[in-house]
Amino acid sequence: MVDVRVVLVEPKYEGNIGFVARAMANFGFTSLHLVKPPAIADEARRRAMHGLPILEAAVTVDSFAAAVKGCGLVAGTTGIDAKNEKRFLRRSVTPRDFSERAREFGGTMALVFGREDFGLLDQEIRRCDLLVTIPASAEYPVLNLSHAAAILFYEMHQSPPKRGRTASEMEREKLHEAFADLMAVTDYPPHKFERTQVMFRRLVGRSIPSKWEFHALMGVFTRAAKRIRRLEKAAP
Amino acid sequence: MVDVRVVLVEPKYEGNIGFVARAMANFGFTSLHLVKPPAIADEARRRAMHGLPILEAAVTVDSFAAAVKGCGLVAGTTGIDAKNEKRFLRRSVTPRDFSERAREFGGTMALVFGREDFGLLDQEIRRCDLLVTIPASAEYPVLNLSHAAAILFYEMHQSPPKRGRTASEMEREKLHEAFADLMAVTDYPPHKFERTQVMFRRLVGRSIPSKWEFHALMGVFTRAAKRIRRLEKAAP
Repeated sequence: MVDVRVVLVEPKYEGNIGFVARAMANFGFTSLHLVKPPAIADEARRRAMHGLPILEAAVTVDSFAAAVKGCGLVAGTTGIDAKNEKRFLRRSVTPRDFSERAREFGGTMALVFGREDFGLLDQEIRRCDLLVTIPASAEYPVLNLSHAAAILFYEMHQSPPKRGRTASEMEREKLHEAFADLMAVTDYPPHKFERTQVMFRRLVGRSIPSKWEFHALMGVFTRAAKRIRRLEKAAP
Repeated sequence: MVDVRVVLVEPKYEGNIGFVARAMANFGFTSLHLVKPPAIADEARRRAMHGLPILEAAVTVDSFAAAVKGCGLVAGTTGIDAKNEKRFLRRSVTPRDFSERAREFGGTMALVFGREDFGLLDQEIRRCDLLVTIPASAEYPVLNLSHAAAILFYEMHQSPPKRGRTASEMEREKLHEAFADLMAVTDYPPHKFERTQVMFRRLVGRSIPSKWEFHALMGVFTRAAKRIRRLEKAAP
């Protein structure tokens, strides 16, 4: 399991520090290092919400080097800079790419965010093992510091999506039979029968119903078909 | 190209509105609707940065219904994920899943964010075609409103939308009416009626039917209901 140290380099606004602490708590990160931060007062604490213990335990250091000391991997974040895109120094990966790579890493990793106005300086960028850039609008790619952090934390927190108990293959087939039966009992036009069946199969395939949804839908279809059969028998 | 309308329902803090406007600008979104917002003053404007034109063009409405009017797909965001799959009302997809599905959709889509404290109310949730939940720490999953918005915008920006002919809002509503009618005509148990309706809305919301799929499904439902009515009339 990778151990992540969040580093803010010379943040200007204490409010952003508070917001970062909150976002860290939201995604299960705890270690925060601050390089030459401003005074931390009420605003940062208020914004940290349940991230307050993270803010209060934050380590203050006076250089970038001190902040990343002991980290086996240093990942810096940078904004899109069209003018610099050809420069090797600032070649970067996306947050998704980064999180996938980061999963393979064991040890302490620094995730570094630069200043609100100037980002990371060239000498700091050189010290980074890799750079991460959030793909954003070409017109205005400069994200708020805590937004950029939240997006990175979010990506790193993602794990394979979990679902509830989904309908089994047998249940799905029963649902398709019930749908076909409903069509049959209503004398659905034969030349459209098969493609409507396939249409329904695609629709269910995309929505991945839970067991409960399967049963509810089955209920509606079978009731309707039964009702039609019963009434037809009784019809004069 | 899907046209996204960002809707904030009764946001409490103007600062969050400004931050959301900035994040919208960062990811190329422009249409903002506000349901009963607080007074918008300096703080919101300062935080909006280059998103200021979005903030200034924001449409203020006095109800959820007015905010989502004309939207063919209403996606609500919620912090509470269904632990139990039977809590179908709040069954949700991840932002990534959502963005992938949203790509298929052509038309205007509302992306709705609830109140900072109470989120979306049950009657608002019922109106949503699908729900999106950001997977976060089980201990503290409550994200700042603008952070949640930034993450959603980021995900949607990663998946460039493609145009597809999907069922319109009117068509979808007709499909839901036809489904309800089919239940009604089969004397579906009243105590299960509404939740089965909402279940079907979620299922359709997740699968984003095309116009063709809509017509095929409508055909099956209305034929079945008609048949039942005709037979019941003829019954002795």
